[in-house]
Amino acid sequence: MNLKQSPKIHNQERRDQKIVVLRWGHRIHRDSRLTSHVALTARALGCSGFILSDSEDKKLKETIEKVTRTWGGNFFFQMGTTWKSNINNWKAQGGVIVHLTAYGENIQTSDVLNRIKASKGDILIIVGSQKVPKIFYTNEVSDFNISIGNQPHSECSALAIFLDRFFEGNELSSSFQKAKIKIIPQKRGKKTLIQ
Amino acid sequence: MNLKQSPKIHNQERRDQKIVVLRWGHRIHRDSRLTSHVALTARALGCSGFILSDSEDKKLKETIEKVTRTWGGNFFFQMGTTWKSNINNWKAQGGVIVHLTAYGENIQTSDVLNRIKASKGDILIIVGSQKVPKIFYTNEVSDFNISIGNQPHSECSALAIFLDRFFEGNELSSSFQKAKIKIIPQKRGKKTLIQ
Repeated sequence: MNLKQSPKIHNQERRDQKIVVLRWGHRIHRDSRLTSHVALTARALGCSGFILSDSEDKKLKETIEKVTRTWGGNFFFQMGTTWKSNINNWKAQGGVIVHLTAYGENIQTSDVLNRIKASKGDILIIVGSQKVPKIFYTNEVSDFNISIGNQPHSECSALAIFLDRFFEGNELSSSFQKAKIKIIPQKRGKKTLIQ
Repeated sequence: MNLKQSPKIHNQERRDQKIVVLRWGHRIHRDSRLTSHVALTARALGCSGFILSDSEDKKLKETIEKVTRTWGGNFFFQMGTTWKSNINNWKAQGGVIVHLTAYGENIQTSDVLNRIKASKGDILIIVGSQKVPKIFYTNEVSDFNISIGNQPHSECSALAIFLDRFFEGNELSSSFQKAKIKIIPQKRGKKTLIQ
């Protein structure tokens, strides 16, 4: 993938580092709902795109692209390419690979997040759906192995906390361009603006 | 439920307010995996328990309780009671009800989190699995409707960010008592301590 061709991130004014999520190990049907939550988390929390590697899931792609058409912003969904080609291309363009894993350096007790930010490169975050190949932990693949706590929980939650801390909360007040529906936050009830 | 009888939270030294997650609208099979991620997120990120209301899912209960036995800490899993009885009991004991919803006050752009903290009461967070009854938005049920951004994403991610911000990150460095397995965070590879 050519980074220069990929869509502009809606909050790129705030940070220069762009983030794309690479989902590995997706199994159609079994993982569709969780993977869709991972993709929607990526979109809502400031990423510029999502790569479903080594797999194709047309229904999932439609779901995510429909959300983007309805709720706005630029967010690409790519599938069918291999993890290896994506990693190699990303590195060749000066990007950084971050592997989210419960075994990595703890985001809370280490300075790993600061080192990721200091690296300046665009970030490809690997989010596994099943047990990942051992090579993912090595520097042949990852520049950083980062854990969101060292307890088993959810890749969806881990990604969300990583993004919230990376963007320092600003992603939650981003406005999404060309949205057809917009929620107006309320103390009570539900209010939407149809545009 | 009697709050005084429920298990002690592993990080209660840090905050007086205890948090329990109430999952509403769970459908067996269809929602099992996502609900398990929500429950594991609650456990890993500092909650003291999980209530699966208006539903029973024995396999899910076994999964979560097995994680707690293996990875330590005190975390209760309750199921089969109604949302209404739980809400009423919680309020009767001076607790506060927080409803996580994309339509609520934005955690980033409003002072809702500070108001929740200032309320001092133990917190029951309602996390819906499907469209929730309208009454959940009213003060008959919720004291606060809080949104983690106003875009559609994932209840799992929303809960994770809420807890991370509520506990100010401290939950990610908590140690879990009586753990049989413990991860030792590493830059490379996987290291566990079997106890």
